[in-house]
Amino acid sequence: MKFARFEYKDGVSFGVVKENEVVVLDGSLFNTYKETAVHYRLANVKLLPPVIPTKIVCIGLNYRGHIEEIGARLPERPHFFLKPPSSLIGHEDAIILPRGAQRVDYEGELAVVIKDKMKDVPEDETLDHILGYSCFNDVTERAIVMKNIADLILAKGFDTFSAFGPYLATNLDPNNLEVKTYLNGKLMQHDNTRNSVFSVQHILNYLSQCMTLYPGDVVITGTPKGIGPMNPGDVVEVQVEGVGRLRNTVRSY
Amino acid sequence: MKFARFEYKDGVSFGVVKENEVVVLDGSLFNTYKETAVHYRLANVKLLPPVIPTKIVCIGLNYRGHIEEIGARLPERPHFFLKPPSSLIGHEDAIILPRGAQRVDYEGELAVVIKDKMKDVPEDETLDHILGYSCFNDVTERAIVMKNIADLILAKGFDTFSAFGPYLATNLDPNNLEVKTYLNGKLMQHDNTRNSVFSVQHILNYLSQCMTLYPGDVVITGTPKGIGPMNPGDVVEVQVEGVGRLRNTVRSY
Repeated sequence: MKFARFEYKDGVSFGVVKENEVVVLDGSLFNTYKETAVHYRLANVKLLPPVIPTKIVCIGLNYRGHIEEIGARLPERPHFFLKPPSSLIGHEDAIILPRGAQRVDYEGELAVVIKDKMKDVPEDETLDHILGYSCFNDVTERAIVMKNIADLILAKGFDTFSAFGPYLATNLDPNNLEVKTYLNGKLMQHDNTRNSVFSVQHILNYLSQCMTLYPGDVVITGTPKGIGPMNPGDVVEVQVEGVGRLRNTVRSY
Repeated sequence: MKFARFEYKDGVSFGVVKENEVVVLDGSLFNTYKETAVHYRLANVKLLPPVIPTKIVCIGLNYRGHIEEIGARLPERPHFFLKPPSSLIGHEDAIILPRGAQRVDYEGELAVVIKDKMKDVPEDETLDHILGYSCFNDVTERAIVMKNIADLILAKGFDTFSAFGPYLATNLDPNNLEVKTYLNGKLMQHDNTRNSVFSVQHILNYLSQCMTLYPGDVVITGTPKGIGPMNPGDVVEVQVEGVGRLRNTVRSY
């Protein structure tokens, strides 16, 4: 199934996506819910980030091609950092290049959304705690990172630098999903999650040994090779197999 | 004034602290509120972290003595990272050393709590957007950081590694506050915020150019020199002038 969080006439709802319509849900995706009789055409609603997380955990290096292209070494364990929820935008929202930006890159990624509280969860039980999957663009001011890695969160934390959506898809195999990023329609990144260094199960087991993950928390699982800059007027799309295609435009401040 | 967030018989309230009592408030600290007729003895309530932030922004290096003791260079601008809200604990809660911990340090700091939405706020207007100040212990697994700085958030993100409280104090001058950390009653860190590299005004102006700060967001402003390890059974206290003394015990997993 595919779920959406959306705005319609100033009200925010969760819904189930059925072809070109969304059926409004009563209840919570994290608990119980049922379909209502209310439904809208997808074209008439504003899609929002599928959930509002208490934290966005980002795995730094997880695809061999990307590790090579930035000249890093294969990590022995997942390295992670956090992006601020204030950087989130949804499908069709604009990525705004900050004043003085020199090179702002797309980084297409598979996003995992947590269903319920996770602490010290064994690898083989982690998938039971996942609500669903989505597309994520971990936008990054590369020039800032290259100058000083201590400014990683500055480079990744600007408002609009976390594009997330369009839908939350359930019942996917996170270890066999095609991840693609398009810039102005041209395929720029293309890999399969089976080629990642650390599986989703391993990542969630590892994270849950450090920190409790809460319902709606988002874990983004690293970007494949092919990162590159975006310029005002560009259209960037991140596609995850089984989810859909997250589309954003780029504009200057 | 001093405010507290507390639990009493399974209910959570905000209150105003008056001597050894707390008067329950009706409304929101971020908007309007009034005192009710209900009051409790402070000894009978469980103090909680004063607010629940959407993000905790941490300034990495801000006191010359600490910059020297870890062998870093004086930063040209604030470097910041994020701690997960899942790491928060309150006054009198236990700091729990993770399995395999080698050296877990206290880092006493002044915490700034944001009152309302801040984006691109000039330095001389930043103080108008502060709700109040509190004490923060930015607990850090030093051995992990020393081994690989890419694991900074692992080292600082464990559950219970962000002690915060006991109160939120208003109308303080953030550029002239004594900050002290005690371990088992012995003074280990002692400096005044006037000796920080970057003022609170500068930090908030800088951050608000990158990211929108929201009501309840917490900015911790760096630790003075004198960081050091804690062991099971230790009592650690962080005192900020005008706020009070945040007290936590340390125990093993």
